Amino acid sequence: MRDVAIIGIGDTKFGELWDSSLRRIGIEAGIAAINDAGISGDEVDALYVGNMSAGRFIEQEHVAALIADYAGLTKNHIPATRVEASGASGALALREGYLSVASGEYDIVVIGGAEKMTDVGDEDITNIQAAAMDQEWESVFGATLPSLYAMMSRRYMHEYGATREQFTSVPVKNHANAAKNPKAQYRRAIKPETVLNATMVADPLGMFDCAPNSDGAAAVVLAPMEIAKKYTDTPVRIAGSGQASASLALHQRRDILTMDATVYAARKALKQAGRDVGDIQVAELNDNYTISEILALEDIGFVEKGKGAEFSSSGQTEIGGKIAVNTSGGLKARGNPIGATGIAQAVEIVRQLRGEAGERQVDGARIGLTHNVGGTGATAIVHILEVA
Amino acid sequence: MRDVAIIGIGDTKFGELWDSSLRRIGIEAGIAAINDAGISGDEVDALYVGNMSAGRFIEQEHVAALIADYAGLTKNHIPATRVEASGASGALALREGYLSVASGEYDIVVIGGAEKMTDVGDEDITNIQAAAMDQEWESVFGATLPSLYAMMSRRYMHEYGATREQFTSVPVKNHANAAKNPKAQYRRAIKPETVLNATMVADPLGMFDCAPNSDGAAAVVLAPMEIAKKYTDTPVRIAGSGQASASLALHQRRDILTMDATVYAARKALKQAGRDVGDIQVAELNDNYTISEILALEDIGFVEKGKGAEFSSSGQTEIGGKIAVNTSGGLKARGNPIGATGIAQAVEIVRQLRGEAGERQVDGARIGLTHNVGGTGATAIVHILEVA
Repeated sequence: MRDVAIIGIGDTKFGELWDSSLRRIGIEAGIAAINDAGISGDEVDALYVGNMSAGRFIEQEHVAALIADYAGLTKNHIPATRVEASGASGALALREGYLSVASGEYDIVVIGGAEKMTDVGDEDITNIQAAAMDQEWESVFGATLPSLYAMMSRRYMHEYGATREQFTSVPVKNHANAAKNPKAQYRRAIKPETVLNATMVADPLGMFDCAPNSDGAAAVVLAPMEIAKKYTDTPVRIAGSGQASASLALHQRRDILTMDATVYAARKALKQAGRDVGDIQVAELNDNYTISEILALEDIGFVEKGKGAEFSSSGQTEIGGKIAVNTSGGLKARGNPIGATGIAQAVEIVRQLRGEAGERQVDGARIGLTHNVGGTGATAIVHILEVA
Repeated sequence: MRDVAIIGIGDTKFGELWDSSLRRIGIEAGIAAINDAGISGDEVDALYVGNMSAGRFIEQEHVAALIADYAGLTKNHIPATRVEASGASGALALREGYLSVASGEYDIVVIGGAEKMTDVGDEDITNIQAAAMDQEWESVFGATLPSLYAMMSRRYMHEYGATREQFTSVPVKNHANAAKNPKAQYRRAIKPETVLNATMVADPLGMFDCAPNSDGAAAVVLAPMEIAKKYTDTPVRIAGSGQASASLALHQRRDILTMDATVYAARKALKQAGRDVGDIQVAELNDNYTISEILALEDIGFVEKGKGAEFSSSGQTEIGGKIAVNTSGGLKARGNPIGATGIAQAVEIVRQLRGEAGERQVDGARIGLTHNVGGTGATAIVHILEVA
């Protein structure tokens, strides 16, 4: 397979974008990425789109063709492919696009992720997100995503003696990072007390332990490495790509405190890249809930099982710490427009590797990782990105 | 890229399968294909699933991981990817799976298509299917798929002097073929009068001009050609694969009687296969409405523009005619469980090329074509399959 590089990035501001539509934010991100790559639309060979539930959020399926259409890319009748793996839809689009370029089928491919969540009410959003879980064994009985992540949190506290105070380090750090990210949904730093005193969502997860409902889109442009250098001096190589699955229902896992899909996906991506986890300098992890970032730290191997909360609360995941995690603000504070998230993670890592991350720049970052999860861990996708 | 072969096929009966569920029919088709290939589940490297709207039909997204899970394929945590392009979701899964094997990323890949449509009411089904169209410009104003295909039909009659009597040849032939297909939803031959006297759906399309609502699943197993022969004496090569898009909204096309996406997809697939359209002996075309099969005959190039209805009514698309079309019964009579359709088309062509099509066998079939369409033509995907 051919080496593949990211040669362009683009994103919208994340937030409650009530004055815009899915197609409009999708196009805004895509055009930003095309402009950043310095290519013209006519050079695009294919489009991949990650989206979880436009069918239910806005009664629109077939969204890849839709976005190709409104972006003017149907002039050449390019293939437009939508992929879905609930919360991991964005990274899945990146991976499928990556394979399509690596295979030699296409040269220039645009990968977009988009979701428009806030056009329906909060209860509807909760139900739509619950479709990421096992309908027959979980959601039909009233289980929601936060309720299952709450069970993991409680179990983690029981098993490893972690405290809610330790957990606050995740959202506090991510809000601090988002305050330095102009595209983030929430740009205010918060204190541990804010997290501890917030309205309870599903004990022990409070409002500040849960990623928000968001609208937004993000996009990248891929090219084979041999031609990437024609377009940019700073191509970012996709050095590794791993995808794995596990049981949809939480009760069927061997251990609810280990996401095996993450373990397998990370192992595969690191192996392909020829890297050890210690080589990673900056990582965007799937912090849809506080516990998610803790488990990801452990499952990828940044720290041993059971030590994630302590590691986080000791400041090791801050910018300047051992491994800078979620410099963008993460799903928690940058925002989590579901299908866009996996692409937004790649956009952030590219900004870091190019040295364009402004106030939140990790000094000398040359190797980064993205980690995107669907449901409670039935899909996980990990990419390793490197300065070419 | 590597040569890729289909080494196993499987499908459920299509119909109103009220006593089964999406996951169950998905697994039934997948296991049939795995058994047909003579492989064990442990040898499967990845799963691709085509599905249009499980989110709305059964409140379940993340269906690729779900089916991997219930098929026991998560033991090795294999990647499971769902793709969607409304009516073309099945063929899109086949194409993405094909690229993944051609690239060298995977060896043995299972491709499944499934849809469970009949768990909701008919009006809901109509609305869910309308999400294949442009929500802001078509469906929000009450346009439905049959209404837009009716406009194409009426325009075709006006433009080329075709008659409803000529159109009847499409469903009459497809029902006759389905009568010989044990897996088909409708196994009764019908007469032209049945079509002409049926309840009107959207003038001039009557009940027998429209594919039914169906439940069903189909699957194929892919392998690189070099190892395919270890598993089977009758591998079927994917000689060409083409995908193209066009505007989602019908009014934005240059001509509502030409599906440019079909034209481009067919041209690409034939070119890759090094074949002329005259080489094709058997074809599964996307007859979701009568007019669709007529337009497909023209857009792929079996007959010149405007001659499709005459060509069909002269018997040239029957088994034994110039080109045997929809020997399975097509979407009209085999049934149209949306995400399954594109895979079911490949299953039928493989049966024909293996000489396993029983009473509906096309003598000496060695080269076949599948054609799958999303919406009113915003996505089209064509595959050329050949005896290896």
